[in-house]
Amino acid sequence: MIITLTTDFGLEDHFVGVMKGVILSLAPDAAVVDLSHQIPPQNVKRAYLLLQQSYTYFPPDTLHVAVIDPTVGSERRILLVKAFRQRFLAPDNGLLSFIPPAEIREIYAIHAPRYSLPKVSQTFHGRDVFAPIAGYLHRQVPASELGSVIQAETMVKIDVPNARSCDQCVQGEVLYVDHFGNLVTNIGKHMLPANVNRAQVILGKARIALELNKSVRQHSYSQAAPGVLLALFNSSDLLEIACNMGNAAHLLEAGEGSQLACSWENL
Amino acid sequence: MIITLTTDFGLEDHFVGVMKGVILSLAPDAAVVDLSHQIPPQNVKRAYLLLQQSYTYFPPDTLHVAVIDPTVGSERRILLVKAFRQRFLAPDNGLLSFIPPAEIREIYAIHAPRYSLPKVSQTFHGRDVFAPIAGYLHRQVPASELGSVIQAETMVKIDVPNARSCDQCVQGEVLYVDHFGNLVTNIGKHMLPANVNRAQVILGKARIALELNKSVRQHSYSQAAPGVLLALFNSSDLLEIACNMGNAAHLLEAGEGSQLACSWENL
Amino acid sequence: MIITLTTDFGLEDHFVGVMKGVILSLAPDAAVVDLSHQIPPQNVKRAYLLLQQSYTYFPPDTLHVAVIDPTVGSERRILLVKAFRQRFLAPDNGLLSFIPPAEIREIYAIHAPRYSLPKVSQTFHGRDVFAPIAGYLHRQVPASELGSVIQAETMVKIDVPNARSCDQCVQGEVLYVDHFGNLVTNIGKHMLPANVNRAQVILGKARIALELNKSVRQHSYSQAAPGVLLALFNSSDLLEIACNMGNAAHLLEAGEGSQLACSWENL
Repeated sequence: MIITLTTDFGLEDHFVGVMKGVILSLAPDAAVVDLSHQIPPQNVKRAYLLLQQSYTYFPPDTLHVAVIDPTVGSERRILLVKAFRQRFLAPDNGLLSFIPPAEIREIYAIHAPRYSLPKVSQTFHGRDVFAPIAGYLHRQVPASELGSVIQAETMVKIDVPNARSCDQCVQGEVLYVDHFGNLVTNIGKHMLPANVNRAQVILGKARIALELNKSVRQHSYSQAAPGVLLALFNSSDLLEIACNMGNAAHLLEAGEGSQLACSWENL
Repeated sequence: MIITLTTDFGLEDHFVGVMKGVILSLAPDAAVVDLSHQIPPQNVKRAYLLLQQSYTYFPPDTLHVAVIDPTVGSERRILLVKAFRQRFLAPDNGLLSFIPPAEIREIYAIHAPRYSLPKVSQTFHGRDVFAPIAGYLHRQVPASELGSVIQAETMVKIDVPNARSCDQCVQGEVLYVDHFGNLVTNIGKHMLPANVNRAQVILGKARIALELNKSVRQHSYSQAAPGVLLALFNSSDLLEIACNMGNAAHLLEAGEGSQLACSWENL
Repeated sequence: MIITLTTDFGLEDHFVGVMKGVILSLAPDAAVVDLSHQIPPQNVKRAYLLLQQSYTYFPPDTLHVAVIDPTVGSERRILLVKAFRQRFLAPDNGLLSFIPPAEIREIYAIHAPRYSLPKVSQTFHGRDVFAPIAGYLHRQVPASELGSVIQAETMVKIDVPNARSCDQCVQGEVLYVDHFGNLVTNIGKHMLPANVNRAQVILGKARIALELNKSVRQHSYSQAAPGVLLALFNSSDLLEIACNMGNAAHLLEAGEGSQLACSWENL
């Protein structure tokens, strides 16, 4: 069984390694896969977006452990959620709110001192609580022994901004900048009418053509000349502004939260 | 069996990958766990502190391989140490000197040309010596065949500065800055008298309250308002200066070696 | 069986994690080893050099998957190459051209919609094509079912600059700068006559002695005083300019492409 890890712990400290030590002490045959440990510190939204784009590529019954936990040691709950034939373990701070309540098959608030490390710190529940719980789940300890069933609707939600349809356009914003400097936005492919063939992406002073006729509906980066900006729907079906062989975020001086529009008026 | 790796090799080169290739060629069923490959170049002390905070979370018989080795290719020894029911393989440069001689059950200086790669470079013993030795240890080659027993007292020690008790205070320094910008110091929880309820941490011009009455003896980051400095004993029981949702090192312009005091006079 | 991964995807996004999810969904018992995910974006040459220095340290039949793929989604081919008792899967953009055609035992252009993910994006073939192909190769699907045999000579080659012999000297250039700031050059050990005992490396205004008599033919970093530049043949038998306990690239303000000469005239 696979256990994935997503944290904002970075890779320079002992944080990630000792989580793996605790997990493998309890579950020596678990396959631990790093999703990312370079979530920007305390950026719950970025972890939400990363998990949302990841879980579907893992086999059924994978356990996704996500520890972006700015209120560690407070009264915030720890959630175990079963949905989409996967399992998710994370603090109740909105990280898992990409899962619609209707999709949740089971949800528990974890409370299991017996299944935590003997001494629980107030600052590193990744090691002291999340990792041992993950190990015991791998060992088939039933969820009902680790916590109590709660109402899915009580889960904390975060505001991931939605794009808005307007007259012959969609208005949205940049959700995050990826490793290549691509600007990933909240404008999904499904938000454009099927009969629109060409659109224009407007971000600050930039105007970037977006070809939408069927044969090129999915674009590649190298359609543009090196150094040239382009717009496409990316591998998660989100509108993305990229620069072939370059860095769109630097070129446009744009980043998380930058506003943009996708318009097909008079084109 | 688990083999952990700690190096200053970074992640952009082939260094870590080929170490794993050599280990897995000899020990296909080993579980290789990265502790960190982002120890600052040649920073033996940082690796010492990382291992010291890690080993206890791994199952018995784990082999911890640490290659921060500025004098690779010189006459420096390579040590295999058995202590705390774990095994440690590292250059004899102080990296393992967090292990008190009294705790060492066995200690060997490795000298095993037969168990190194056929061609040993002078600049990459991680690949040519440490990795194959780790693989053969996993294969149960006895330590006595890989080297000679030495005296624990001959192990090279490094100066990790100790905090000093003074009149109603403890004076210490910052050991390192973690990924979040938290300042981790050498002042351990045990150095404060049990009957002290409140103290003050003094670093440069900053004065930071440290609450010590029993109920809040272990603090969480979110007890402070966002952006506000706080002092707490961290998950390794070391005094730490943090900034909730922020970066204490940047805020205080402090770092490794910064002096501080923890005082409970007239409070 | 081992599957290695080399990409320019970085570690902050979901890219690497979902590739592993896809691979492990198909091949749960594969051992996935990261070579590097920090190849500079689109830098095919850097990946070429990394793989060239790595493959020989892995057991026979290892599958090396390399996805530095600036023309993903175009008509570029995907190659599966068997050589050196290893297997290599990469885009046909020169990445594998360190393998001389004479060493290639089998070479295929992959075309296998049945063995890709059901929906193939135009921007993330690492997830949608390379990962599932790797999984099916691990499951023993024969290469002949995944693509067609091609001529080795049709493989795209890249220009990795060769050093040139001149009168009592070799002229070369810096191939890349490693994590430590060492300047790794294209001057191989075999390019210097066996009877040369001393040479001088000339880079900009710097003159660095290179000792070559037999007993010190392989040097270590610590032969130089801390902060002092030195030249040596490194663990890949390439001439390297280093700075003991320091960063040669910063010190010399040199980097990829910097010209240098190694001369033994009048020494």
